Amino acid sequence: MARPPAVLDRARSTILPALRQATARLSPELRRSSEYHLGWIDVDGRPIEAGAGKHVRAALALLSAAAVGADEAVAVPGAVAVELVHNFSLMHDDVIDDDRERRHRPTVWAAFGVGQAITAGDALATLAMQVLLDEGTPGAVRGASVLADATSRLIAGETVDIAFETRDDVTWDECIEMSNAKTGALLGCAASLGAVLAGVDGERVARLNDYGLHLGLAFQAVDDILGIWGQTATTGKPVWSDLRQQKKTLPITAALARADGHRDELRLLLAASRDDEDAAARAADLIEKWGGREATEQAAAEHFDSALAALDAAEPEPGAKTELLEVARFVVERET
Amino acid sequence: MARPPAVLDRARSTILPALRQATARLSPELRRSSEYHLGWIDVDGRPIEAGAGKHVRAALALLSAAAVGADEAVAVPGAVAVELVHNFSLMHDDVIDDDRERRHRPTVWAAFGVGQAITAGDALATLAMQVLLDEGTPGAVRGASVLADATSRLIAGETVDIAFETRDDVTWDECIEMSNAKTGALLGCAASLGAVLAGVDGERVARLNDYGLHLGLAFQAVDDILGIWGQTATTGKPVWSDLRQQKKTLPITAALARADGHRDELRLLLAASRDDEDAAARAADLIEKWGGREATEQAAAEHFDSALAALDAAEPEPGAKTELLEVARFVVERET
Repeated sequence: MARPPAVLDRARSTILPALRQATARLSPELRRSSEYHLGWIDVDGRPIEAGAGKHVRAALALLSAAAVGADEAVAVPGAVAVELVHNFSLMHDDVIDDDRERRHRPTVWAAFGVGQAITAGDALATLAMQVLLDEGTPGAVRGASVLADATSRLIAGETVDIAFETRDDVTWDECIEMSNAKTGALLGCAASLGAVLAGVDGERVARLNDYGLHLGLAFQAVDDILGIWGQTATTGKPVWSDLRQQKKTLPITAALARADGHRDELRLLLAASRDDEDAAARAADLIEKWGGREATEQAAAEHFDSALAALDAAEPEPGAKTELLEVARFVVERET
Repeated sequence: MARPPAVLDRARSTILPALRQATARLSPELRRSSEYHLGWIDVDGRPIEAGAGKHVRAALALLSAAAVGADEAVAVPGAVAVELVHNFSLMHDDVIDDDRERRHRPTVWAAFGVGQAITAGDALATLAMQVLLDEGTPGAVRGASVLADATSRLIAGETVDIAFETRDDVTWDECIEMSNAKTGALLGCAASLGAVLAGVDGERVARLNDYGLHLGLAFQAVDDILGIWGQTATTGKPVWSDLRQQKKTLPITAALARADGHRDELRLLLAASRDDEDAAARAADLIEKWGGREATEQAAAEHFDSALAALDAAEPEPGAKTELLEVARFVVERET
């Protein structure tokens, strides 16, 4: 993996005290499952140092304040809130997708039960709102509103993603729209939330949001490639995990669109992939053969370029711009 | 069942347009499962008139505005938001408790799958925040904050309720504290939210909140009695449902505290109740014999009295006071 840019480390150490203060407000059971999920404690509550996510969203929130010339400190509640929403969605996704492992550890539902994973996710989403509303400034109230809207889109995207699992006619455009909601909305929000907290509004905020949105789509395209061809050591997920779970991702929808005359063959292999590893391997080969991987790589590149164009249009402060470029590169340069 | 007071019908017709406007903002899948849950459509999306809840929380929110001399219309976004939070928690509870029926219909997860029920609940909780934050008035922003705090307590209470299922040493006080969070917090919020939206703060709001909180505890005590001795026709749940689910409710904790020398016998019967209807029937008899039912009825009466005392202290407008009394009586006068 590419070396993480320094801003991710800075984001981590900047927001960690505030994030810990936030989770400390939770009742004991909810605090335990949340802090376990965040990689701070093991299943018995002992402090550990696990890989706890890359804090990309927190970094974007901080940098978006710097981008409009404000102090990054003003963005801290936003950075905390957006990480809380992200982790709420991961907890619920793991229940919904029946995923037993994340970041090479048992998921919250696997460790503490489905009930705890559902309520802990609920608690983090609520806590995100509390963190911003307690701040009480006009920027923070506006930030809560913007974050609630992004959360709503994220939930809608996840719901469509589930519905896709039982359909075999999902189109590329539908898949882009779903990724836009599931991944783009929260990254767009993160990449503008610091500016919102700083009291800025209008064109620059809209362009920063666009930067995050396109970065989210580029990220999702890379993630879709990893979901089929990624190695377990990199992804922490089983091989061909998206195929096994009947996800309808960009490479699949692109291949189906191009597999004239062979569409039914590919559909049958995809359906068989749920219970049959050989079928999944053959499906992966066919998807590559019919151009699904190439189309998705191209989409990743295009949305990366759109992200950079939006960043230019936002006219960010030079230092913040350099770091926002570094984050963008880091997000798309993950190895399969 | 006691005849519902007129204010519940008024609350229903007052908030229904705004509630429909709110759910119309949801994406198609989320809208479908939410409107199904609310009793507006059947599983195929056809309009129906199902029993859709009693709108007690909405009525309390409207009356709390009237109680401080404001127009009930100012409370509508609060009434809608509190109903959304209530229904979010029901959807997730049904998943967590593995309940297949509610209001004599299949629950959302039973009808549309666990994934849809989780994301639909998430969507309603988020929508509640959006409804208040979009309002944008200082009262509505304060209302969003108050509602987020109540939601946080509700989630904590539900989490403790789950944890109780695997414990056999839950005390009466722990059970009261859990009910306080699970049921009292949101009713307290509902009973003061309209006043908050009207821009009122301070002593009257605190006393209205106390009224709702104690009413919630009285309601929960009655609900705990119905959870053991209620008839399916009234509750829409299987007989002895709380015993079958290993819930630790007020009658159970009271009986255990009083069953000196017979505690182990009762514990064994309670444990056996999960899979054995005869054991549940005998446990119910023992709980009654050891005074669990009587203690819970007494608690219901005491919290009802405390609710009325708090209502007096809030010095509500006379018309609103009459209706708040009617709601209070209706809430505790449900038949087993």
